[in-house]
Amino acid sequence: MNTQFLQRRRALRARIAEAHLSGVLSMNPASWYYLSGYTGEAGALLVSSKGSWLVTDGRFTSQAKEETSGLRVVRQEESLMATLGRLLRGRSRSRIGFDATQLSVAQFRALRKAAGSRVRWVNADGEVEKGRQRKDPAELAQIRKAALLAGEVLSNAIKLLKPGVREIEVGAEIEYQMRRRGASGPAFESIVAFGTRSAHPHARPTGKRLRKNELVVLDLGAILAHYCSDITRTVFVGRAPARIRRWYGAVQEAQAAAVAAARAGISCGDVDAAARRVLARYRLSQYFVHSTGHGLGLEVHEDPRVASGQKHVLVPGNVITIEPGIYVPGVGGIRIEDDVAVHAGRTELLTRVPRDLIEI
Amino acid sequence: MNTQFLQRRRALRARIAEAHLSGVLSMNPASWYYLSGYTGEAGALLVSSKGSWLVTDGRFTSQAKEETSGLRVVRQEESLMATLGRLLRGRSRSRIGFDATQLSVAQFRALRKAAGSRVRWVNADGEVEKGRQRKDPAELAQIRKAALLAGEVLSNAIKLLKPGVREIEVGAEIEYQMRRRGASGPAFESIVAFGTRSAHPHARPTGKRLRKNELVVLDLGAILAHYCSDITRTVFVGRAPARIRRWYGAVQEAQAAAVAAARAGISCGDVDAAARRVLARYRLSQYFVHSTGHGLGLEVHEDPRVASGQKHVLVPGNVITIEPGIYVPGVGGIRIEDDVAVHAGRTELLTRVPRDLIEI
Repeated sequence: MNTQFLQRRRALRARIAEAHLSGVLSMNPASWYYLSGYTGEAGALLVSSKGSWLVTDGRFTSQAKEETSGLRVVRQEESLMATLGRLLRGRSRSRIGFDATQLSVAQFRALRKAAGSRVRWVNADGEVEKGRQRKDPAELAQIRKAALLAGEVLSNAIKLLKPGVREIEVGAEIEYQMRRRGASGPAFESIVAFGTRSAHPHARPTGKRLRKNELVVLDLGAILAHYCSDITRTVFVGRAPARIRRWYGAVQEAQAAAVAAARAGISCGDVDAAARRVLARYRLSQYFVHSTGHGLGLEVHEDPRVASGQKHVLVPGNVITIEPGIYVPGVGGIRIEDDVAVHAGRTELLTRVPRDLIEI
Repeated sequence: MNTQFLQRRRALRARIAEAHLSGVLSMNPASWYYLSGYTGEAGALLVSSKGSWLVTDGRFTSQAKEETSGLRVVRQEESLMATLGRLLRGRSRSRIGFDATQLSVAQFRALRKAAGSRVRWVNADGEVEKGRQRKDPAELAQIRKAALLAGEVLSNAIKLLKPGVREIEVGAEIEYQMRRRGASGPAFESIVAFGTRSAHPHARPTGKRLRKNELVVLDLGAILAHYCSDITRTVFVGRAPARIRRWYGAVQEAQAAAVAAARAGISCGDVDAAARRVLARYRLSQYFVHSTGHGLGLEVHEDPRVASGQKHVLVPGNVITIEPGIYVPGVGGIRIEDDVAVHAGRTELLTRVPRDLIEI
């Protein structure tokens, strides 16, 4: 694995040079792992033409030294930004790229002060993350496994849906089963929403008990060997009335349309539009209150975003979720989500759980 | 509960007026809950002399309306900062406080642009969070319950420590047992570190199996009804050699000294120094690589920080952790952590698990 991290840093260095930068700063833990193997929660990674530095505090320095190679691990004195700034101080005419979405106003102030006026700070939002959008075969294999694992856990969770069970009980079982299957944890707090609570797209599990004739939205993801998955299915407890069937059919059709659209050469905005067009035809647009999907990898939400107007054109190696949904206040929600890998000339569905309405 | 949120906003408004601000912006989800009851993951809360606004995206608007009262929920158009800025636009001579540690450079740029030049942005770091440091009796009762729950889960986890068990198995069981006892989840990824891995203060559970004559560090916390707990114990598998006993005794003495020091009227820096002094006497200072503790409440790490030089003077209602530790590379780590509530004239240990070295 170590040579892989070195290769990724080398690729980043080439992009840095093209952008006429002497180095680039990353404050994103997923990118630290991607570029170095470091899994700590705190720090700052600087990749420069002259070498790489990882600054972190005493809780993580020994771990950082064990996990990385070919870079200098520096234990922070006082504050992270003061230490980082001092490393850069006096490097005249250096142009350092930074991501304005990753650095707080306070951090940036402290960093500029410590680095001094000879360092020029250049906006390079998303520059480090660009390399992560195109997954290599080993990464794809990991996400595939994480997606299958999430599907198994979801299928098992559906079996727990008996009237009387609480949302938090199902949530606890989901996360336990993930770990039993080797996941290091959930990729996000699992969503288990019964009845009208499912009308909140991001409902957290509560003590609510399941009743007959309720919709259930289950949305979960696992982290397996650092890579995330994300899957959603909607279940009806009992025989679904005609209105629910019609809505479910519309969401299913919208999801299928977006999956079909998600091909190399197509923009993410067009994938989003494919789902939106179907829901508009059913006059359900006003209930589709979020975007169609997001990139998936070391982070559960990463670029490219699959949203209205997004210009990113899909390329082989992109992995995205497709998850249109509708949310009717006072009634409930319906969402179907799969993970999709884009290849040259074909699209691979990584999640393999049936998509038809499940009535239990 | 609703009147409580209104009261907290009223108290904040009084502090805002004192600071000659017309309003204050919070980008901290724990503070959104504290001030309004909103539990969504995305948004921005503005509390002003003229009323309060909660801006969030379509995933959270229906939830926000259900969870809050007495404030305006605004669904964001385009970006969060653009919508927030537009709400403020044209309010001449308004001075809005913001926390520079909570806003990214990119967000602040977008916000200032959208709000226009008539809005003045004033640094008010930690202003909103000040109210959260002094817990009221209901909050203390919740943290007490969360601390007892964490202690029970920890005591049960110790029973799983048989040679051959894997770190991740113990981790999975810990989080499952928390949820079974009513926790909404872990307050942080549980630390289960066997043998030399325990020399990393923040080791994540791996597939490593437990062997005889190893140290084990277990560090876990639960979220119960929004409030966090945090506890650490260290176990030796077998009969501990003299060196380990001496080290353990030193950490135990340092922890007791810091707990004894943690009283109303004493500065956090002095609490930290009490632990540090003991470890220095044992010539173990270089192995104590982090600070002595941190505030505990809606967030697992919040103010006040219990670290070298921290000037915050403890007052009744403060809840902090006391968790000195030593980490010897190639050998292992020892940490003992309890949660402490400061009252007038006395200190309450919220975690109730024995502190003596456990040999199993």
